[in-house]
Amino acid sequence: MHPTITAFERSPDRGRGQARDMRVRWALEEVGQPYDVRLVSFEAMKQPAHRALHPFGQIPTYEDGDLALFESGAIVLHLAERHDGLLPKDSNGRARAIAWMFAALSTMEPPIVELTMAMLVERDKSWYAERLPLLQDRVRIRLGELSRRLGKADWLAGAFSAGDLMMVTVLRRLNTSGLLDEYPDIAAYVARGEARPAFRRAFDAQLAVFTGAARSSQS
Amino acid sequence: MHPTITAFERSPDRGRGQARDMRVRWALEEVGQPYDVRLVSFEAMKQPAHRALHPFGQIPTYEDGDLALFESGAIVLHLAERHDGLLPKDSNGRARAIAWMFAALSTMEPPIVELTMAMLVERDKSWYAERLPLLQDRVRIRLGELSRRLGKADWLAGAFSAGDLMMVTVLRRLNTSGLLDEYPDIAAYVARGEARPAFRRAFDAQLAVFTGAARSSQS
Repeated sequence: MHPTITAFERSPDRGRGQARDMRVRWALEEVGQPYDVRLVSFEAMKQPAHRALHPFGQIPTYEDGDLALFESGAIVLHLAERHDGLLPKDSNGRARAIAWMFAALSTMEPPIVELTMAMLVERDKSWYAERLPLLQDRVRIRLGELSRRLGKADWLAGAFSAGDLMMVTVLRRLNTSGLLDEYPDIAAYVARGEARPAFRRAFDAQLAVFTGAARSSQS
Repeated sequence: MHPTITAFERSPDRGRGQARDMRVRWALEEVGQPYDVRLVSFEAMKQPAHRALHPFGQIPTYEDGDLALFESGAIVLHLAERHDGLLPKDSNGRARAIAWMFAALSTMEPPIVELTMAMLVERDKSWYAERLPLLQDRVRIRLGELSRRLGKADWLAGAFSAGDLMMVTVLRRLNTSGLLDEYPDIAAYVARGEARPAFRRAFDAQLAVFTGAARSSQS
């Protein structure tokens, strides 16, 4: 039996890999763990059966035997603890890589989601033109800080880790914002992540859901 | 030598315990680990010496021997892994408690911060009256979902855990919003957290910084 994750039945981003199942797929591919996928509709996500797995009615979820988890960060950390390849072996390095996971989700992602959501749902509001630059500048501050810390390194904490995996997926949300063009070193960092074979396999698998090439259960 | 955390020299919330050092202080008190505090000014937080500890120029940080960490979630998880009292012993229960830590930071906190920040900095904007109800409704959705999951339980995942610690500190940010009054079971959950002796000790310690009663280094 392989673990089973959930993903959108109809990908709202048309398979660009922005949904949060991408993070879990990528982690599973990095550690070489085959998995099954159960696709859920937007209606089913809000029903009690799915809410038993995910209290907030979202994807992804993760089921493996009698363990059921939600939150992409928690699932990736669980996989990183169980398999080699996503966390350093030494305890201090491990703690620092985990700190970058939290930084990706808690410090970088909120202003990025606020910006990209405003670009989607506030575009016809009277305040959009005045508010957009404020949101962009908040993201720019974080990108500048990340760029200074990354410096000439390939990854945030030594070798590629779960911290980079989370950070790259968060930064990819900026793909349509134009902001990554202002930070070539950050754009190159994202490209390094996207060039990893495990990323490609995960990306192709989530794209196949949109193109119709995926079986509803894959391994 | 005790571990050292950083906190605001001048608490922007006047000691109401909303700053993120409160989470780390609470966790340290729960596990009975004495600690030292280094207070930093807003100016010093943006200087290279502090940015070497915290790439985004924020508090808290955590230093213990040759380990330096940032991100309150990562620090609390590190403490929970090193000491008894904040995570279940069984591996599945442990993973579920960690999932609630991520849920607090990644699912609950962003809409709460967006609401409370708008109440602080957008109050005089032309769009405030139209946008405020949208932000409140997004938080209400999450509070309703959390309320349904909590049900009649005292805590989110069995005994009190690091997941509850993070969730309670995130929910406390709503104290001035009035929204907690609409969810009496969530308000009672927050009050249960605040009634814990470790919470009180942590709260008093951060308040003492504001009232001037704190030594700059405490244990």
